[in-house]
Amino acid sequence: MIASSTGISEVSAIPSSKHKIHQGPVMAIGGAEDKFRDREILSRFAQLAGGPDARIVVIPTASSIESAGERYKAIFLGMGVSEIDIAVIGDRPDANRESTVRMISQATGIFMTGGNQMRLAAILGGTGAMKAILERNAQSAVVAGTSAGASILSAHMVAFGSSGNTPKQRMAQMVAGFGLIPEAIIDQHFRQRDRLGRLMMMVATNPSLLGVGVDEDTAAIFTHDGCLEVLGRNSVTIIDAADAYTDVYRVKRHGGITLSGARIHVLTSGHTFDTASRALVRTPGVFALDGSTGSDIQTV
Amino acid sequence: MIASSTGISEVSAIPSSKHKIHQGPVMAIGGAEDKFRDREILSRFAQLAGGPDARIVVIPTASSIESAGERYKAIFLGMGVSEIDIAVIGDRPDANRESTVRMISQATGIFMTGGNQMRLAAILGGTGAMKAILERNAQSAVVAGTSAGASILSAHMVAFGSSGNTPKQRMAQMVAGFGLIPEAIIDQHFRQRDRLGRLMMMVATNPSLLGVGVDEDTAAIFTHDGCLEVLGRNSVTIIDAADAYTDVYRVKRHGGITLSGARIHVLTSGHTFDTASRALVRTPGVFALDGSTGSDIQTV
Repeated sequence: MIASSTGISEVSAIPSSKHKIHQGPVMAIGGAEDKFRDREILSRFAQLAGGPDARIVVIPTASSIESAGERYKAIFLGMGVSEIDIAVIGDRPDANRESTVRMISQATGIFMTGGNQMRLAAILGGTGAMKAILERNAQSAVVAGTSAGASILSAHMVAFGSSGNTPKQRMAQMVAGFGLIPEAIIDQHFRQRDRLGRLMMMVATNPSLLGVGVDEDTAAIFTHDGCLEVLGRNSVTIIDAADAYTDVYRVKRHGGITLSGARIHVLTSGHTFDTASRALVRTPGVFALDGSTGSDIQTV
Repeated sequence: MIASSTGISEVSAIPSSKHKIHQGPVMAIGGAEDKFRDREILSRFAQLAGGPDARIVVIPTASSIESAGERYKAIFLGMGVSEIDIAVIGDRPDANRESTVRMISQATGIFMTGGNQMRLAAILGGTGAMKAILERNAQSAVVAGTSAGASILSAHMVAFGSSGNTPKQRMAQMVAGFGLIPEAIIDQHFRQRDRLGRLMMMVATNPSLLGVGVDEDTAAIFTHDGCLEVLGRNSVTIIDAADAYTDVYRVKRHGGITLSGARIHVLTSGHTFDTASRALVRTPGVFALDGSTGSDIQTV
């Protein structure tokens, strides 16, 4: 780090609009990721964790299926990772146990399975295990979650809700998640379970947060520079209500709400989105509809 | 009309950004409109046609059900309209017959039933009957269509397509509609048949046109000032891709497409949208999310 002539170190030349919260990548996987063929998403996780040198901890707490942890362990072993532990956390004492915290604190990759995100919130919320996950991610470890494990990554988490394309009052209930992705509300199984309506309702009431809906077998990978990369077979849908108008505060009971002027982004694999500027990052070969080249995409 | 001092007639003081195409209102109904209870949408049609003094022509050509015309005739009779004719148009010679054209030319309200919009396009397209509909609307008559009857109102019409929330290549096929609503692509049964994906795909390839998805038992009423009013039980969804970026021109076969930065508007009954400025019209009680009042909504 070399001090510049203005006395400001070069590192501070990084735009301040970029988030610096998750130093390690955070992968929100929409559920039902491929486990049998090219396993693109799980391979990326193993690779980000260090490949053969990774120390992976699988947290199956969301699941009520005993074998959920073992299943992922077998997959990562098959990818050549040698150190894989399953953190058996069934209640809050488990989540505060020193051996659990130590296991997580040594991980280079932490993977949370699917199931019920309320189990993760209620059992891990505020415990030593949760703090160790945040700390390891702040240092460098990749944290991934699929389905319920993806929801818990948000600061403001979807606890449960109803499906449908139309935003309606009371469609979703929210609780505090782990806060690894403070800038977005993550929803999963997005297209497959028809969750556009509830995501629009949530951004109408939380316009500071991006709504990020992740399809099955698809991941949104949040990186330390504030970007989100799409990986996998389907799409990631982003709703930005920063400039929108709504009547959500006066709609009664379960009435339909109006949300006018929100931006929608439906992105396929390989596209990158800047969560700070809330715009697509220039992608070679993508052109504006007005005929200009993609070079100004960043400035939308 | 009084000539002003500049020699320009007062009528030209109307903002040029406003459409002046449909002098009579055009009602795009999303299908399955209420026929038994308060019949809000059908009542509005009868009222716009002149109430008791209306001369309504029902065109059941889209339907393969013999009684489709009789059913609407009975409903409008029940509302106190005394003159109701059914234009039996089963083929192109019917659609060019002088008696048919004369019947339409005397109507104050023209109603097209649901069914298959390809029947309307193939049987009425370019005929005397179609021209009479356009001419009567340009004079003052209200034209309404439900389901297939709504699709045909567009200039660029959805002929058929597939459902799903995600935009994909080749999701919808388009043909020429009647052109009563040249500024928009109308889709119907919108939420109920999961048609967001195909509407996004169509605006990605037709960014000059607004995508307007009308739910069942809901109508988008286009007026001579270029506005669109929402009426009914559910919502109208508008997609505006004017400022969006897409890769639609390079996605092969049925691949998912990226559409980033489109504006989405989901509007409930009572809201009005300006299709020229592509923004919500100020509605009392609607406030911006940033805390300002609704007075600047028009200027989005």
